[in-house]
Amino acid sequence: MRATMMYGPRDVRVERVPDARLIESTDAVVVVRRACICGSDLWPYRTMERSDTGRRMGHEAIGVVEAVGADVRRIDVGDVVVMPFAYSDGTCVFCHEGLPTSCVHGGFFGTGAADGAQAEALRVPQADGTLFALPSGDDDALMPSLLTLSDVMGTGHHAAVAARVGPGNSVAVVGDGAVGLCGVIAARRLGAEQIILLGRHPDRIALARRFGATDVVSERGDQAVEHVRALTGGVGVHSVLECVGLAESMRTAIGVARPGGAVGRVGVPQDETMPASQPAFYNNVTVGGGPAPVHAYIEELLPDILEGRIEPGLVFDRVVRLDDVPGGYRAMDERQAVKVMVEP
Amino acid sequence: MRATMMYGPRDVRVERVPDARLIESTDAVVVVRRACICGSDLWPYRTMERSDTGRRMGHEAIGVVEAVGADVRRIDVGDVVVMPFAYSDGTCVFCHEGLPTSCVHGGFFGTGAADGAQAEALRVPQADGTLFALPSGDDDALMPSLLTLSDVMGTGHHAAVAARVGPGNSVAVVGDGAVGLCGVIAARRLGAEQIILLGRHPDRIALARRFGATDVVSERGDQAVEHVRALTGGVGVHSVLECVGLAESMRTAIGVARPGGAVGRVGVPQDETMPASQPAFYNNVTVGGGPAPVHAYIEELLPDILEGRIEPGLVFDRVVRLDDVPGGYRAMDERQAVKVMVEP
Repeated sequence: MRATMMYGPRDVRVERVPDARLIESTDAVVVVRRACICGSDLWPYRTMERSDTGRRMGHEAIGVVEAVGADVRRIDVGDVVVMPFAYSDGTCVFCHEGLPTSCVHGGFFGTGAADGAQAEALRVPQADGTLFALPSGDDDALMPSLLTLSDVMGTGHHAAVAARVGPGNSVAVVGDGAVGLCGVIAARRLGAEQIILLGRHPDRIALARRFGATDVVSERGDQAVEHVRALTGGVGVHSVLECVGLAESMRTAIGVARPGGAVGRVGVPQDETMPASQPAFYNNVTVGGGPAPVHAYIEELLPDILEGRIEPGLVFDRVVRLDDVPGGYRAMDERQAVKVMVEP
Repeated sequence: MRATMMYGPRDVRVERVPDARLIESTDAVVVVRRACICGSDLWPYRTMERSDTGRRMGHEAIGVVEAVGADVRRIDVGDVVVMPFAYSDGTCVFCHEGLPTSCVHGGFFGTGAADGAQAEALRVPQADGTLFALPSGDDDALMPSLLTLSDVMGTGHHAAVAARVGPGNSVAVVGDGAVGLCGVIAARRLGAEQIILLGRHPDRIALARRFGATDVVSERGDQAVEHVRALTGGVGVHSVLECVGLAESMRTAIGVARPGGAVGRVGVPQDETMPASQPAFYNNVTVGGGPAPVHAYIEELLPDILEGRIEPGLVFDRVVRLDDVPGGYRAMDERQAVKVMVEP
């Protein structure tokens, strides 16, 4: 079968690899119907250390179950499933607490020995805990939005939850990538009254407004902080969704939070330290977030997609075939695409 | 009158200054019955840039109101009052939200133009919002515990609230200073089941056990993290109270938190950046806290003191007269005293 491999900066190839197969009795094999390229894939795309063996890529998918191991109980052959970016057993203490990304038997697709989803098929460990069987089958029109449940919509929602968004809140979303855009959807969905997008790309801003953004701030750094303050009576916002992961964006996020506010961060932090420790402290600003436990959120978000109340699939602005995945990376790296969907 | 001035590292003097008097119509003048030396006073004691004019010191007090301005309504001459370390108008948006330390007309005693409490008397701005009149009068036996409501008990409580301590939780308290000890009281009071003190001073450890600590970890750094994990089935604690403010203690605090846990930090951070950004992120550990809104907590904590359920005043292990305040600083700096009470 074919799968996407990364060997170093800007070196992405689609290659023949051994067919996906069951190894553990808790595995499933999933034939990929749709996958994505993630903003977080761009970090290794830009900075990965060269590797002779390469790394499987892709961690978001919807697919059809082709085979299940002897100990798989809840997932059947033929199920149409959402595959969250992390695998998890569904039974450990952290899975029970709604944090499957910290599962004691878990891990992340496209890292270590785990397969990647930018492929024809892949082995899914801990199938019972990992996969979510869709009641809707493979309705093509809903596919893009359902696909976002594997990562980007759940991640935007996690940012909003960690930022304690609630009815009537003022919210800032730092970053106009696909996660930021889903963060706007999530903030609106949770009742935010004012939603300020910090971004500078006209097409993304237009989509953010469609999703519910009420204001746009296109400056950066201190000027962005001043502009958000001006939009909020001088005090800043209750909730900030940090959807980038750089020191500068984090500094901005803390800077625009009002005293007692909260920052929910979901952009993978690129630095060992967090900036603006003292401003966060003196303003009693809480910083939370991390890898989104997207599996735990599917049940809450799914009805809104099935019933058309939210349409996160609009973040996909390009579709590529599997063989064209390298071009998809290029388009996202050069910001010609917000988010790329892969149809193997 | 006499007041404590600091001019540079280890240069603390008790000097004659002009008598405290009303300036604004919202002021009160308070004659100090008891004050304290705070752990946070040791930062300038060790590192303050030399100053010819000096700085008034002290921000915790119980006193008797001697005079009130024309616009003071809720506080009367003769009231015995707790003076929290921050002054606040009691009417602004942040005061209403329970965060008087961010009051738009507020500030901190012993900084800028504000008087200090290690003195015979002081001017209290925004008296109505700042002062809390005690129903109990000046009962000498309760005085030490009531005095802790001005900072250290409220601060320990804030750490516990920010760390989301709740019934049945496992808790780690980083730091065995007076705030850490009050953090133990607060964690116990909020229903924590396991309370692990990270500290190494036998007298403080003994007091922590009396307050409810169930375990003690005296290692530092990675070894401390390992020990806490060993005490918690390998996973870490739900809640961490960071009561020091150094990069190393913060790193330890994040390291001992279990996935999905929370760190409440009240130690004034000595660094611009927060360490361990990535471990906090990957484990979805929330970091909150800041200057404690102690005024907002008095109503909740006071009955427990009046009815003897908690006795935070036990953190005072030395009493000095005003003229001996410099010796009090020395004792705390050399760790011969946990916390010093000042009886002018």
